[in-house]
Amino acid sequence: MEPHRTVFRVRYGECDQGGVVYHANYLNYFEVGRTEFLRTLGTDYASIERGGVFLAVVESRLFYRSPARYDDEIVVLTRVLDCRRVGFTVETQIYCMADGRLLAEGNVKLAALNSSGQVVELPSQLRATLEAL
Amino acid sequence: MEPHRTVFRVRYGECDQGGVVYHANYLNYFEVGRTEFLRTLGTDYASIERGGVFLAVVESRLFYRSPARYDDEIVVLTRVLDCRRVGFTVETQIYCMADGRLLAEGNVKLAALNSSGQVVELPSQLRATLEAL
Amino acid sequence: MEPHRTVFRVRYGECDQGGVVYHANYLNYFEVGRTEFLRTLGTDYASIERGGVFLAVVESRLFYRSPARYDDEIVVLTRVLDCRRVGFTVETQIYCMADGRLLAEGNVKLAALNSSGQVVELPSQLRATLEAL
Amino acid sequence: MEPHRTVFRVRYGECDQGGVVYHANYLNYFEVGRTEFLRTLGTDYASIERGGVFLAVVESRLFYRSPARYDDEIVVLTRVLDCRRVGFTVETQIYCMADGRLLAEGNVKLAALNSSGQVVELPSQLRATLEAL
Repeated sequence: MEPHRTVFRVRYGECDQGGVVYHANYLNYFEVGRTEFLRTLGTDYASIERGGVFLAVVESRLFYRSPARYDDEIVVLTRVLDCRRVGFTVETQIYCMADGRLLAEGNVKLAALNSSGQVVELPSQLRATLEAL
Repeated sequence: MEPHRTVFRVRYGECDQGGVVYHANYLNYFEVGRTEFLRTLGTDYASIERGGVFLAVVESRLFYRSPARYDDEIVVLTRVLDCRRVGFTVETQIYCMADGRLLAEGNVKLAALNSSGQVVELPSQLRATLEAL
Repeated sequence: MEPHRTVFRVRYGECDQGGVVYHANYLNYFEVGRTEFLRTLGTDYASIERGGVFLAVVESRLFYRSPARYDDEIVVLTRVLDCRRVGFTVETQIYCMADGRLLAEGNVKLAALNSSGQVVELPSQLRATLEAL
Repeated sequence: MEPHRTVFRVRYGECDQGGVVYHANYLNYFEVGRTEFLRTLGTDYASIERGGVFLAVVESRLFYRSPARYDDEIVVLTRVLDCRRVGFTVETQIYCMADGRLLAEGNVKLAALNSSGQVVELPSQLRATLEAL
């Protein structure tokens, strides 16, 4: 299945004194992509949390391929790599809209936790939706 | 009374592509100063929140006087300007340790809120301590 | 003249443990509004910087009126309050799209600086455009 | 050789609405650790950049082991895993001071770049120091 696509611009405060996006901020971009991806699946992360389940990031791996700059339009491609009973893994790639360069890519592993921080099962509807992909 | 003094260094990701601390980050520095200030008063903000009271920022005013740069040691001076039944105002000044330049100054007005966001009275012990200053 | 209007969503990492947007992040939202506002004027801030002029924030004043939450769509209204030879002041209001609540408002005073941090005149084209508003 | 050790506290704005440190912020903590580590080696990253070399993060891998909370004192342990002609890899572990829990760990691969973004050799003094470890 084609990855989900979100487009937005790099903000001024996200760039460092090298004139490029500070590396930590790509994890925020990944999160924006996941939020929009979940929304298109007919669910949204805010309502999952109101149901008492937090999707915690338990692992992240990123490769920074080419610098993004202030005001660049970036394309965030998001897709689910695998889904487990208690979590799932999301792969993200970020491209520069203007010239198609791959800027960064990586994946993030999420686990479902309750409000006490214990691992729980994914909400069944979310799991069914993710596995159907 | 002499203001409370905290010293720490500017982080890389806090500087923007102009090579200076991004203006929004001074509000984080102000908050670090308030946290350390409250600690020296024998209370701490984390325990206030566990007691069900949030100290929400309802107003902020900042003057950016001179740029701070990556790895600069900065001195944050914090003092209470006034204390009300439902909140207080904190004045903060930030100096450069190396050359004594005033980097930024301003004040932040805080209100006590419960978890529903309604204005409540300050915890009595905190209020007594702040008024005694 | 009607203020410029930008709409986007609150990100997860922008909310604090009170479940609301952390107050410092409104300055980032103000900046996004200014960036988009300048773009509609036929200029863009990135090209101003490439011309050797930085628009530094020298003063900010914010009033936090009502909390914004994760994934809320927010409407950022931006307009120029006044324009001087060496800078200008921007007023910003942020509303909640869903219910029309005023979330935060304030203004930011900007000064034109060269790369050495000295005050310089605004680029003449930008100044003419802002004064024409 | 024993890893370098830096201790500081979690800031309020670094925690998300789950009440724990937002995962992206650990990359900032890793950077603070690297900065302090380089300083103890008799060099500092700010002076490396003034010499025209940027140490860009080209890869990062993090495992989030246990949540950190607002105002927790955290211990950042930093050591060099390997040093190459054009970069090096740093391993970081972050512990909770109060109870010794491992909070997060991972590594970051850095490459030396010039101001045009091209890979260059590490400054020879830095390389000699890192290889001597």
